[in-house]
Amino acid sequence: MNITRRAFTTGIAAGAALSPLAALIDAQGEQRRLGYCIVGLGRISMGHFMPACKMSQKSKVTALVSGHREKADKMAAEYRVPAKNIYNYQNYDEIAHNQDIDAVYIALPNNMHAEYTIRAARAGKHVLCEKPMATTVKDSQAMIDACKSAGKKLLIAYRCQYEPTNLRAIELIRSGKLGSIQAIESANGFNERAGEWRLNQKMAGGGPLLDVGVYSLNACRYLTGEEPAHIEGYCTVVDKDGRFAQVEENDGWTMRFPSGIVASCNTTYGANMPGFFRVHGSKGMIHMEPAFAYDGLHLKAEIHGEPPIDDRNTEKDPYQFALEGDYFADCVFQNKEPKTNGEEGLRDMQYMSEIYKSCGRSLG
Amino acid sequence: MNITRRAFTTGIAAGAALSPLAALIDAQGEQRRLGYCIVGLGRISMGHFMPACKMSQKSKVTALVSGHREKADKMAAEYRVPAKNIYNYQNYDEIAHNQDIDAVYIALPNNMHAEYTIRAARAGKHVLCEKPMATTVKDSQAMIDACKSAGKKLLIAYRCQYEPTNLRAIELIRSGKLGSIQAIESANGFNERAGEWRLNQKMAGGGPLLDVGVYSLNACRYLTGEEPAHIEGYCTVVDKDGRFAQVEENDGWTMRFPSGIVASCNTTYGANMPGFFRVHGSKGMIHMEPAFAYDGLHLKAEIHGEPPIDDRNTEKDPYQFALEGDYFADCVFQNKEPKTNGEEGLRDMQYMSEIYKSCGRSLG
Repeated sequence: MNITRRAFTTGIAAGAALSPLAALIDAQGEQRRLGYCIVGLGRISMGHFMPACKMSQKSKVTALVSGHREKADKMAAEYRVPAKNIYNYQNYDEIAHNQDIDAVYIALPNNMHAEYTIRAARAGKHVLCEKPMATTVKDSQAMIDACKSAGKKLLIAYRCQYEPTNLRAIELIRSGKLGSIQAIESANGFNERAGEWRLNQKMAGGGPLLDVGVYSLNACRYLTGEEPAHIEGYCTVVDKDGRFAQVEENDGWTMRFPSGIVASCNTTYGANMPGFFRVHGSKGMIHMEPAFAYDGLHLKAEIHGEPPIDDRNTEKDPYQFALEGDYFADCVFQNKEPKTNGEEGLRDMQYMSEIYKSCGRSLG
Repeated sequence: MNITRRAFTTGIAAGAALSPLAALIDAQGEQRRLGYCIVGLGRISMGHFMPACKMSQKSKVTALVSGHREKADKMAAEYRVPAKNIYNYQNYDEIAHNQDIDAVYIALPNNMHAEYTIRAARAGKHVLCEKPMATTVKDSQAMIDACKSAGKKLLIAYRCQYEPTNLRAIELIRSGKLGSIQAIESANGFNERAGEWRLNQKMAGGGPLLDVGVYSLNACRYLTGEEPAHIEGYCTVVDKDGRFAQVEENDGWTMRFPSGIVASCNTTYGANMPGFFRVHGSKGMIHMEPAFAYDGLHLKAEIHGEPPIDDRNTEKDPYQFALEGDYFADCVFQNKEPKTNGEEGLRDMQYMSEIYKSCGRSLG
């Protein structure tokens, strides 16, 4: 993959710097690659994470877990995964004995994240798990505990926290150039089709809040660098077309942060809602849109007394997945705690639980 | 004033159509003009409403009320107001005996709105009162009662409800072209200077929520055509620079509407926060920005299967004030209840009171 100087530099800024030794190895083209076992062959793994590994110097697909042998065989052929490294959900624990596998990438429906993370940790593998971390706070804590007990790394796939344009927004805020931050607006959502597992409460654990609203929630936290002191929200259904018999269609919520920053957010499964955030400071404003998409991320900033900033990330999908996978490889090789570790995921689960509680629903 | 065909058409759509008789009179250039007594010579009256009357065919400045005689004399000369029609806050009630005055335009600090509205009604004059209507719910009700008892019209100056681009947004939503509406984001604010009366709790009744947040609140109501079923919000202070010893600096709030629409809004006195709203429907989205400014209002809409809409109102300030003043003239001449009457203002006061209550503050 074409890692640009800018992305590389930003990676360093994000604390992803290689050790001098690792850098040396990298320069010689002998970088060790983290062997990922892909758990769940769906859109995000086959369409994004696995292609990202192909382009990466630090990550590779070495094993697969799927309930569909035919699909697994096809993917195995494409990624040169030997037949012995193809698993299913019954013999999954046998990955413990496979030295080709350093880590698992969990891309299953939300309610399977906890079980397959915990089994991976017990099998002695590191875990990169898609967001939302799980469907309950309790499961999230159990995932953290299992990885800790096994001495294995756990990274929750908050790819925006590794993406250069989001990092630049954070840098602009931390630099003080925007002055004192007052308020954030953010939204993210899409129009979900009937029949998708995301509309099943048991599998999804909740509605758009867990799947896409979590981007806005997480963004408000990484943009402010603060944890919300209080949250209130609403969960509603507008379209009585059968899709929302189990999960909510819309969430709107407001957060108060300790410094006094307020953040107001929406999410939906009932409309094409472009992911954006807008940060208001006493000396300037950031508008980022798209803010959370796989590519095309676009930051605009107006800062008093400075030329306007217009920064579009021109790298194409699956660029962000490669950054994320490679960052996790660095964490493993350098024994570094991931920035978006289990505790980071757990906090969002707790905040989402509070939003659901504030409107009489519950997580999970 | 140059009333464009578009504005005129939209005016009709908004129920501001002239009666056939009034239209005839208008065509002959013999339209009777409503005589306004300007109460309070400040930025909004001298810079916007009074110049608008100059351009209008239906409104004229016939009297002034000011505590500064010199300023009043200067304005009187500019607007050809005879000396006998210049009042102060002591002899204000004498407007009762002045036939040149049909209505008053109240552009005073918020805490004076109620008293000067009630005294005007008792003096037999119609009232166009700036927003926010008052500083308490009780005062708002008293204003309504006084105007009703006197048989006089009361219009609260929600000029966006008479502005063509906002009306087009409403029309797009009501037409069903956006499908089912799910969510709205809106914000509006500015960086207030130390020493302004808006920072005085007694005079202002509250912080940015009353002064500029009310635009977002009111917009969510006219865009949805619904009254919020529930509201939660936060009021905070970020900048400990002395400006916010009395009123809050920021408000963030979320509303749930009966249909299930959620709306999340912010306002501030601590940052230049461009007024905008974004409406998400199952079939399309509206983004309006600026949404509440005196001119330059800009509506963009993306509707599935239709060419994108990009509609910029090129009329210049004080165009909106002329529309508003002339609409009120029509209400008086045609004995028509104003769209943004006292009850409309009262509702916003009640909702703002709920926001303050939800965060331990109170209105007034």
